[in-house]
Amino acid sequence: MKIFVLNCGSSSVKYKLYDMEGERVLAEGRVERVGQENATITHQSTGKEKITKTMPILEHTVAISETLHLLLHPEHGVLNSLDEIDAVGHRVVHGGESFSESTLIKEDTKDILDSLAELAPLHNPANVMGIRAAERLMPHTPQVAVFDTAFHSTMPSHAYLYAIPFNLYQKHKVRRYGFHGTSHLFVTQKAAEMIGKDIKDLRIVSCHLGNGASIAAVQGGQSVDTTMGFTPLEGLMMGTRSGDIDPGAIFYLMKTYDLSLHEIDSLLNKHSGLYGIAGVSDMRDIEKKMSEGDRLAQMAFDMYEYRIRKYIGAYIAAMGGIDALVFTAGIGENTPSLRTKLCQNLSYLGIELNEELNQKRGEPLDITTEDSKVRVFVIPTDEELVIARDTATIVGRE
Amino acid sequence: MKIFVLNCGSSSVKYKLYDMEGERVLAEGRVERVGQENATITHQSTGKEKITKTMPILEHTVAISETLHLLLHPEHGVLNSLDEIDAVGHRVVHGGESFSESTLIKEDTKDILDSLAELAPLHNPANVMGIRAAERLMPHTPQVAVFDTAFHSTMPSHAYLYAIPFNLYQKHKVRRYGFHGTSHLFVTQKAAEMIGKDIKDLRIVSCHLGNGASIAAVQGGQSVDTTMGFTPLEGLMMGTRSGDIDPGAIFYLMKTYDLSLHEIDSLLNKHSGLYGIAGVSDMRDIEKKMSEGDRLAQMAFDMYEYRIRKYIGAYIAAMGGIDALVFTAGIGENTPSLRTKLCQNLSYLGIELNEELNQKRGEPLDITTEDSKVRVFVIPTDEELVIARDTATIVGRE
Repeated sequence: MKIFVLNCGSSSVKYKLYDMEGERVLAEGRVERVGQENATITHQSTGKEKITKTMPILEHTVAISETLHLLLHPEHGVLNSLDEIDAVGHRVVHGGESFSESTLIKEDTKDILDSLAELAPLHNPANVMGIRAAERLMPHTPQVAVFDTAFHSTMPSHAYLYAIPFNLYQKHKVRRYGFHGTSHLFVTQKAAEMIGKDIKDLRIVSCHLGNGASIAAVQGGQSVDTTMGFTPLEGLMMGTRSGDIDPGAIFYLMKTYDLSLHEIDSLLNKHSGLYGIAGVSDMRDIEKKMSEGDRLAQMAFDMYEYRIRKYIGAYIAAMGGIDALVFTAGIGENTPSLRTKLCQNLSYLGIELNEELNQKRGEPLDITTEDSKVRVFVIPTDEELVIARDTATIVGRE
Repeated sequence: MKIFVLNCGSSSVKYKLYDMEGERVLAEGRVERVGQENATITHQSTGKEKITKTMPILEHTVAISETLHLLLHPEHGVLNSLDEIDAVGHRVVHGGESFSESTLIKEDTKDILDSLAELAPLHNPANVMGIRAAERLMPHTPQVAVFDTAFHSTMPSHAYLYAIPFNLYQKHKVRRYGFHGTSHLFVTQKAAEMIGKDIKDLRIVSCHLGNGASIAAVQGGQSVDTTMGFTPLEGLMMGTRSGDIDPGAIFYLMKTYDLSLHEIDSLLNKHSGLYGIAGVSDMRDIEKKMSEGDRLAQMAFDMYEYRIRKYIGAYIAAMGGIDALVFTAGIGENTPSLRTKLCQNLSYLGIELNEELNQKRGEPLDITTEDSKVRVFVIPTDEELVIARDTATIVGRE
């Protein structure tokens, strides 16, 4: 079975084509600057040369169409006909309460897509554009929506409710949803596999640390809490997002600078986090500046580590203990110094890091010593594979 | 040495007169509904009859003046002359970064008071009114300001900085300050005494759970983190305050209901918390409703417990362990069922509750068994005594 996975952002399209026999990637790539005259497509079929094209791509349908042409390309492609694609799996950021699991998009497509766009006008429109475009280009191929929020739908109400008037939850579904669900699911399942125990018997804290970042408490294979909330702004300090902040400080800033909602939202989402403190949002730049003695870069790093550590502690209290800690995504996978500092500061848990293993990259690893009371893993995440698996399961079931 | 302690709110004045020899309370009372025609004064000198008066009291100077009359009253009073009062200690909510310890108000009074009012226009005006009134009524008596924020001035920058543009901290001092400092100081010192160890060697998590509520991580006798932030809105779920919430949810609510800053501030400060979920803000009412099977009261209780538990876990991670947990203030002192649930859920720490001791009230108690790996205390707080002590120390030093 061949599954095409699409992840559409507001100005980008990422894709992967899987052969589900052996879960092999046949081709992958990305289109960037969708909407501009100088969009770029980077495409590579497995075992073939990587190619890059620059061209005007003004909307998502064109981007996806170009992508499909490349898959069919005699030299750079891997398909003879689009009919070989059995289904398309779409990443959708926000599933709200209506979509607690991956969903086949059927005749009622329009209703589903409308309700998706409505419930998260900030996050879903690009995903919905991708679905519409794929439907147009492959009208006979099943389309499946896989939600970033779905894995967290098992959270108990005391974890997902905010302490605001209850009717705001009833009327507008204002509550914690959480994101990065496919990633947390993937790495915690992998960790359980590596431990060699049934995930039902494990309490895992999963740290997805990319430009966006969230932690999930995963007990018995189910998400019981996570740091992102109604939107991806809550929780950890991120590349450019503030994460947690006193609402009173928000009101003070809005008043002092006479900020509009759009401006304060932009301030906290795009000009804060690592960038707000250190002037750079990439952890590699932070580390470089730290090595040059930059005081604010060091401060940003310390805040970043401290906030992760506090949530790890909070989720241990939420689950009544911890068996494993997992690091994944850009920063989680590629910043040994962060893991070292965290594990040192968490040594009261009986964590013992194997510093040599901690320096390795690129493969799933347990980076602790044999005596460590808590296993610590670095597991490269693969959200596209989870989307492909879910899509294959759903299409196979129909 | 006799110290008069004043705690002025926007419509109330609470007071206590101490003889610092033996730290005895000579008299205490409160004025309520200041600003109204039917204000009430409740006054009691130790060992004498409690009296209550209702009268028009339109401003703080009158309230304090009436109070001083009662202290001099031949039947209900304890003083022959106001000159017997050696100093007045004022509770001031917000000390900002300028006031990291208690401060004698000298000739530069006006500057100090102005800067206090400016830095926290929401919280300090009533306190400043109290200081001005006391200066007018006792012009030759030293006045000391004791700040709710001062105990937290030892927090490291990675704990007090928000992940927002650094210049907002530099220009406007937008950062975590924390409140309830005098209470956290009092109960953690008392806990160290009861343990019989130097507080320098202890890691204590202090839970001040009143209508306002905060937790502090106290390491070596110093506050290293606390849940309230730039304002008292951040952190725990409280009687009517939301505590932590996704900033993105705030923006969504403001947009959906077209709320002004004043309205959203009021929503989160006055209509949220226990009240928002259960319709009542008093924990005794919550417990009563729970016993009647009220689902939302149970939910509010569970959320309240869960959020405290997560912060306890977070602060254990912040300090690298925990020696003692302290409960204080209205809810902390008087809700055995909350302590039971918390300690059950924290049993992974090796906490063993002595349920019989847990049911007792009114005196400082260690409520754990001998085998408990973490000591758990219930300690009635006494913020006025801390204010009196600080005031005596400062006046004695001059």
